Amino acid sequence: MTDFLTKEVLKQRLAHLTPLLSDNIYIFEEYYDLYYLTGVKLSRGTLLIGLQIALFVDPRYEEIAKKKCPWPVYSLSEEAIKNWLQEHAEKTLYFDGAKISYERYLFWQKLALSINLQITPEVNPLQAIRMIKSDEELHALKESADLLMRGFTYIKTLLKEGVTEIQVSKAFEIFCLEQGAQKLSFEPIIAFGENSAMPHYRSGLKQLKFPSVVLIDIGVTFNDYASDMTRTLLLGDVDPKLLEIYQLVKHTHKEVLKHVKSGVSIKFLDQLARDSIQSYPILHSLGHGIGLEVHEYPRISVQASQDLLLQKNMVITIEPGIYVPALGGVRLEDTIVVQEDGFENFYSKLD
Amino acid sequence: MTDFLTKEVLKQRLAHLTPLLSDNIYIFEEYYDLYYLTGVKLSRGTLLIGLQIALFVDPRYEEIAKKKCPWPVYSLSEEAIKNWLQEHAEKTLYFDGAKISYERYLFWQKLALSINLQITPEVNPLQAIRMIKSDEELHALKESADLLMRGFTYIKTLLKEGVTEIQVSKAFEIFCLEQGAQKLSFEPIIAFGENSAMPHYRSGLKQLKFPSVVLIDIGVTFNDYASDMTRTLLLGDVDPKLLEIYQLVKHTHKEVLKHVKSGVSIKFLDQLARDSIQSYPILHSLGHGIGLEVHEYPRISVQASQDLLLQKNMVITIEPGIYVPALGGVRLEDTIVVQEDGFENFYSKLD
Repeated sequence: MTDFLTKEVLKQRLAHLTPLLSDNIYIFEEYYDLYYLTGVKLSRGTLLIGLQIALFVDPRYEEIAKKKCPWPVYSLSEEAIKNWLQEHAEKTLYFDGAKISYERYLFWQKLALSINLQITPEVNPLQAIRMIKSDEELHALKESADLLMRGFTYIKTLLKEGVTEIQVSKAFEIFCLEQGAQKLSFEPIIAFGENSAMPHYRSGLKQLKFPSVVLIDIGVTFNDYASDMTRTLLLGDVDPKLLEIYQLVKHTHKEVLKHVKSGVSIKFLDQLARDSIQSYPILHSLGHGIGLEVHEYPRISVQASQDLLLQKNMVITIEPGIYVPALGGVRLEDTIVVQEDGFENFYSKLD
Repeated sequence: MTDFLTKEVLKQRLAHLTPLLSDNIYIFEEYYDLYYLTGVKLSRGTLLIGLQIALFVDPRYEEIAKKKCPWPVYSLSEEAIKNWLQEHAEKTLYFDGAKISYERYLFWQKLALSINLQITPEVNPLQAIRMIKSDEELHALKESADLLMRGFTYIKTLLKEGVTEIQVSKAFEIFCLEQGAQKLSFEPIIAFGENSAMPHYRSGLKQLKFPSVVLIDIGVTFNDYASDMTRTLLLGDVDPKLLEIYQLVKHTHKEVLKHVKSGVSIKFLDQLARDSIQSYPILHSLGHGIGLEVHEYPRISVQASQDLLLQKNMVITIEPGIYVPALGGVRLEDTIVVQEDGFENFYSKLD
């Protein structure tokens, strides 16, 4: 458990959240949302927040939840939830439609109907809180990034002719676990040669043979916080077309970073990257938020449902990429903290 | 990719599935369902099966999907799905309500309405196919279990005074990765002393100090198939109450296995275990199916929605447990293949 999650910190988080809630009740049941608001890793639980708050947990978590949380903890049952809602809910229950299964929705719908409440999906108000990191979270994210950087340095020592993508991927995982990582934050992408042209390739049996482009997209989880970084190496005398792509991605990456500071539009940033690499097809958006989860709100994308402005202490990735089938791909990804007048990069500068 | 997934095998799987489908269309979008039926690891895709079949994948997967699958592959878009459905759907779309988010349900509902189709949740017909393993799958599951057994043997060498749960957990993970595991199939439960009384405890900073009960619940994924095993060790001169519990769990485990063979009711098995340990609270069901996923259909539980009979080549866990707060817990878990007249155990016999 992340040790800075004191009752004080949890109360502050709730204080940030409550102004975003109406006098009705929002249902939180997703693992990371629950962890963020309770400090407890619950495989199953229900947190109801309106003017009042209640946490319902499996009996086996009751003791630890009561110790960690500053608010009422109850034993989880449909009956207990129903009784609490009858006392505290005014009119409507809200839930996050992306985080609840259809089946779970039916459960809540039935329960709501039985006590004359309405139920309706609504944008998860917690995502706007979680996207702004506290100093303690920034510290944890930096430590996770530092461990990842050591992992990347280690990977570079492995890139000899004959090694396979899977061998590199596995050696990296073992190295990071030995260094104290809890786990990898996602399955590594180690792609040699033309495999790098597939943005979501994992790692296979392909052997390294110079000259080669090598795309490395890696991340770890350390002290509960995720890291994420991509580097693309051009080893030996590669096709000049790859050099050209590399320069364009690097230029794009740099251009985007020039504009990063509090108040800048996220859609503008992604559009900037798209305009910069426009002669190539755009296969993914520019980046994403990162924190407890490796992919968090917001998406850094022109396709985002609303245009959000960058804010101080948002942590996001910037990862433009260009992919040419049968030749190879280049992606360069950093994780940065947005600041008042610019940003801080968790990773060392691209050469 | 599991190399026995030839076009022939995929066709056979479809041939098993189609008699369970009506002339309407079932939507498959979950990762393991898609992998089972296409042989491709798709982070996003839609498989529609009725009298006709169509696979819609992200453009970056088109090439590999066309190579692996014996059926039509299309580029994934709402437009493409709609066009195909207008041509091939009679009346109703079915989906698995547990595997689709509420938001995704809204997408399908809107699409169905726009072309005058109905949409309704229905039990996933693939679970009845996936629960019966082929010879190749049984082979893969056994290999995964063998690797896990080596991991367990390794863990036993680590159980010296002073070692922490987390140290054991991490050393086990590194050992299994070095032995060729793709990953752990779940976060290991290494619980010393009274921590073993919490069935879903993970691993913490507690140090081993004799005498102690040590509960070890571990699993790996190897060649895409999961393994799962629990052993409980009583190290040193433990509280006699723990010995008593151990004997009762072991007796229960043995009694259940005596009844395992094709044709036996799953609810009966779980009830048998409940009756056997009835003086203690029952905190979880007797077991679960296992295959590509560590928890698959069916649950071995009296609370299952329907009473299923064991069938030849079902692979399930049998894991009775007793937990006494502040003292400790005992769980003994094997993974077995159901046979005509009994079963085969993947793990060596309990002493």
